[in-house]
Amino acid sequence: MGIHVVRFEDNGTKWGVLEEGRVYPVEGSYLTLADFLKDGVSVAKEINKENIEGLDANQVTFLSPVTAPTQIVCQGANYSAHREEAGLQGQRPPFNLIFTKAASSITGPNNDILSPTHVKLLDYEIEVGIIIKQEILQPITVTPDNLAEYVAGFVITNDVSARDTQFTEGQWYKGKSFRTFCPVGPVLYLIDKDEAHYIHNLELSLSVNGEIRQAAHTEQLLFKPEETLTELSGLMSFYPGDLVLTGTPGGVALKLSPEDLDLLMNPFVKLDQKVEKLNESQASNTNYLKEGDLITCEVRSSDGRIDLGKQQNKVRFV
Amino acid sequence: MGIHVVRFEDNGTKWGVLEEGRVYPVEGSYLTLADFLKDGVSVAKEINKENIEGLDANQVTFLSPVTAPTQIVCQGANYSAHREEAGLQGQRPPFNLIFTKAASSITGPNNDILSPTHVKLLDYEIEVGIIIKQEILQPITVTPDNLAEYVAGFVITNDVSARDTQFTEGQWYKGKSFRTFCPVGPVLYLIDKDEAHYIHNLELSLSVNGEIRQAAHTEQLLFKPEETLTELSGLMSFYPGDLVLTGTPGGVALKLSPEDLDLLMNPFVKLDQKVEKLNESQASNTNYLKEGDLITCEVRSSDGRIDLGKQQNKVRFV
Repeated sequence: MGIHVVRFEDNGTKWGVLEEGRVYPVEGSYLTLADFLKDGVSVAKEINKENIEGLDANQVTFLSPVTAPTQIVCQGANYSAHREEAGLQGQRPPFNLIFTKAASSITGPNNDILSPTHVKLLDYEIEVGIIIKQEILQPITVTPDNLAEYVAGFVITNDVSARDTQFTEGQWYKGKSFRTFCPVGPVLYLIDKDEAHYIHNLELSLSVNGEIRQAAHTEQLLFKPEETLTELSGLMSFYPGDLVLTGTPGGVALKLSPEDLDLLMNPFVKLDQKVEKLNESQASNTNYLKEGDLITCEVRSSDGRIDLGKQQNKVRFV
Repeated sequence: MGIHVVRFEDNGTKWGVLEEGRVYPVEGSYLTLADFLKDGVSVAKEINKENIEGLDANQVTFLSPVTAPTQIVCQGANYSAHREEAGLQGQRPPFNLIFTKAASSITGPNNDILSPTHVKLLDYEIEVGIIIKQEILQPITVTPDNLAEYVAGFVITNDVSARDTQFTEGQWYKGKSFRTFCPVGPVLYLIDKDEAHYIHNLELSLSVNGEIRQAAHTEQLLFKPEETLTELSGLMSFYPGDLVLTGTPGGVALKLSPEDLDLLMNPFVKLDQKVEKLNESQASNTNYLKEGDLITCEVRSSDGRIDLGKQQNKVRFV
């Protein structure tokens, strides 16, 4: 069985193993997730929990287990229900839409999301994040049988998005990269080599102020992690600790009609007209994030073996 | 006066100072550009060239002075002439278009560009690259007076682009990120603190098989480096050795009419129809890169003080 790893503050930054509500610190100092994957995992696996009391997880300040700098490579529009609410056709498209977020968008699983005040259409997107285990420097073919050689484990991520910037400027990087726009954690579940199949068996849910907005299952992913990693390896290289976001399911605040989307993508409609139309089309939509909103994200396997914890972030406009 | 730095192969990887056709090795080992900026620059500045013979630059195999992993953050459509040939209006737009390339697209200044065979519309884009000098972890205001605090220097880059992927999939990351799609170097010119103004005084030229295709001057940049770094610092963080591409001038192979661009951006035109229309619109265009083409890029200051060298890459489809 794999282990539930956390990174936390305790007179500095530490790594730990989470088990039954207690955090067992891992000896040694690991500055980056890559360092921890290289040198910390074997130490973590050998902790003798009978000899250590551990810390009460409720008293611990968790940090993102993914450290910056790193690569954050993202799949867009990878669940049918999300495609439809974004104005697209629901079926699997003929290509895997890829974009990136800045590493500095990473924040802790309980930190505030700090949005610039000019953002009027702030949205949430729960996603399962995949952690790269080893360097991938050339094209590989990833299968269910060898996925665990390339993937260290899974985390909860929230691909927070400023829809105004994202949809009026066309390229998504900026609207998705503001600092704190990628809460990660609390748990990084490190899979055992026979647990790769769990990537297809995770339940996601996101609520805002206790109201469920997104609830889905990773079996609904249109482009599967195996084929996505295979394709991306033919294009680019990965390094240990890199993060791949697998896309968000339906239920985000954004609701675009095909006509809205068409206008927003038109390169000859002027920016101020796009902003006006987008705001108009979303004006009666009360699901966008507001000052003080509390977002809760949870991901676990259907059999309860894997629990990526509870991510809770408050929204602030600063 | 600043120094012309190179990275090269000589029984391993070394750093050097290029002066009057000779390369003077810098003592010490610097695994990354960040390491070199931290510890190597002072050593490089103290080389006593009268006591060392140095190497003939013509005999040296140059490597990219920018090392991966790193961030490559790019400005799009930042020269008027390039905007027009891409089907856009020429004047400065109301926003600074930002996208990224994968770090693994970096290749040496004389390496082959290896394009997948499925790419039919392979294009070149000479750009001045700016190297980040220090961590930028919060919003800053960059001015001509303080630019040299944040910028270490300049390099030649070629933002090689698979137009088929770029324009049919909408998000540009994939079409611009194939391995070898970002030749960098040979020279990293490290500016002295009174030389920041040279960023506005660089002449760029790119030729294919000896025919000049792009020739421009950085004074034509629509969004200036100072305002771009100011804006981006409000969004994201930078680390020493990161690379910011400032956009390409007119003269690329791509020639799109506004009608072509409109169709390509339309989310409801099917992928195969976009591919067909794009290929049709570019069919009589013989400027796209072909097997064996030799691309030469040069950048220097008008007064000759700064010379970023000659970047030459052969195109191969593999």
